[in-house]
Amino acid sequence: MSEQSVASYPVDGTNRVKRRHQRAHYDHATVHALLDAGTLCHVSYVIDGQPYCTPTLYWREATTLYWHGSSASRMLRNLSEGQPACLTVTQLDALVLARSAFHHSADYRSVMAFGLARLIEDEAEKARALTMMLDRLFPGRTATLRPTTEQEIKATSVVTMEIDKASAKIRAAGVIDDEEDYALPIYAERIPVRTVLGAPEPDGRLIAGVTRPATLSGFSAGRQLDEALTEAYATSYPAG
Amino acid sequence: MSEQSVASYPVDGTNRVKRRHQRAHYDHATVHALLDAGTLCHVSYVIDGQPYCTPTLYWREATTLYWHGSSASRMLRNLSEGQPACLTVTQLDALVLARSAFHHSADYRSVMAFGLARLIEDEAEKARALTMMLDRLFPGRTATLRPTTEQEIKATSVVTMEIDKASAKIRAAGVIDDEEDYALPIYAERIPVRTVLGAPEPDGRLIAGVTRPATLSGFSAGRQLDEALTEAYATSYPAG
Repeated sequence: MSEQSVASYPVDGTNRVKRRHQRAHYDHATVHALLDAGTLCHVSYVIDGQPYCTPTLYWREATTLYWHGSSASRMLRNLSEGQPACLTVTQLDALVLARSAFHHSADYRSVMAFGLARLIEDEAEKARALTMMLDRLFPGRTATLRPTTEQEIKATSVVTMEIDKASAKIRAAGVIDDEEDYALPIYAERIPVRTVLGAPEPDGRLIAGVTRPATLSGFSAGRQLDEALTEAYATSYPAG
Repeated sequence: MSEQSVASYPVDGTNRVKRRHQRAHYDHATVHALLDAGTLCHVSYVIDGQPYCTPTLYWREATTLYWHGSSASRMLRNLSEGQPACLTVTQLDALVLARSAFHHSADYRSVMAFGLARLIEDEAEKARALTMMLDRLFPGRTATLRPTTEQEIKATSVVTMEIDKASAKIRAAGVIDDEEDYALPIYAERIPVRTVLGAPEPDGRLIAGVTRPATLSGFSAGRQLDEALTEAYATSYPAG
């Protein structure tokens, strides 16, 4: 594939990475891989001039994002044209201790996605989104559950946003000091940080004979969460 | 201590938790404990009507927050009265798989802090903030480094915000199903999620005889990041 044919998000003043621009990526593959490795995002809205930064669960389908949006429901209802929002996902990979205060840093991967957020009002569209939110995390799980009721669908808010612009920023450099500082007798290190799964805790009220389905085997003790999520996403969306 | 004497943040329409309000906390002790257990936050600003959600490193001193603010510098400069901002810290503790789609959830701890963000322009104030940002993470570390230069201080942006309002939200409930659903032959579990430290990776260019200082012993392989950070904070700020 030639470089020209790599699908990318458009870049303008909103999403152009101004500082440390060598860490920036705008191509779909990098942006989507970071989105698919997470389940917790932070989303920013403005309500009456006040910015809010709300943590919530999200998922991606092609270039569209979805998230649980109860806190934004009031603002988004009846705003069918949508409201500007920014959804950000960040993975901390390491703390970086350099020989100078200035070069202390962190290795991380983050993606910021911009667009117009809109509340899903149509009940069939919402039901589909909720099913996919679950199956994206745990492929095939919805089919094993008791059906969702109309009342439950009504009680849940789902927000959707077509990604207009996005940028990914990745630092994976470890310790980088000024050349002359390497001669100093100062200790420097990289401390890796990983978000991992613990041993699953079966619910105490399972009825006799009910065991863990094989579809959950990717969520095993000690595994990195981002790896389990990436694998689950690829299972639910084999076409990417 | 009587209940009346517990210091709390004031509650109004901005920070009152509307959904699942039984998970809400406004007291200083809960809010500050969550802030001190993290190092990566997401902060929301509005620039020309567009909300931004930016990941960055932060630290707390009493009821004041500080963070690395390069991306907001342009907006904040010359706005000495400050700009509304929201700083949020979230810790994912578990994925919760219930017997119905509706009751799938996550155990988490999050805090949202609101106030007016302002760029620190005074160089002495900025130098002090940068020292404390580092020593809050790694107590005593600044004293072991080569001194920060004036140019480095000039090249770094630090934002400060007095917390006007804040709310913490904690879910630590695991699986909660509708009573009638417990009779169904459906598997349910809680999958713990932990952010842990890996084995420290000493820089490859350390000069002979330089070893890891004892002050870093709290950052040991396998430890939970939030525990290491809470301990470091308590060392740097014994008065809380």
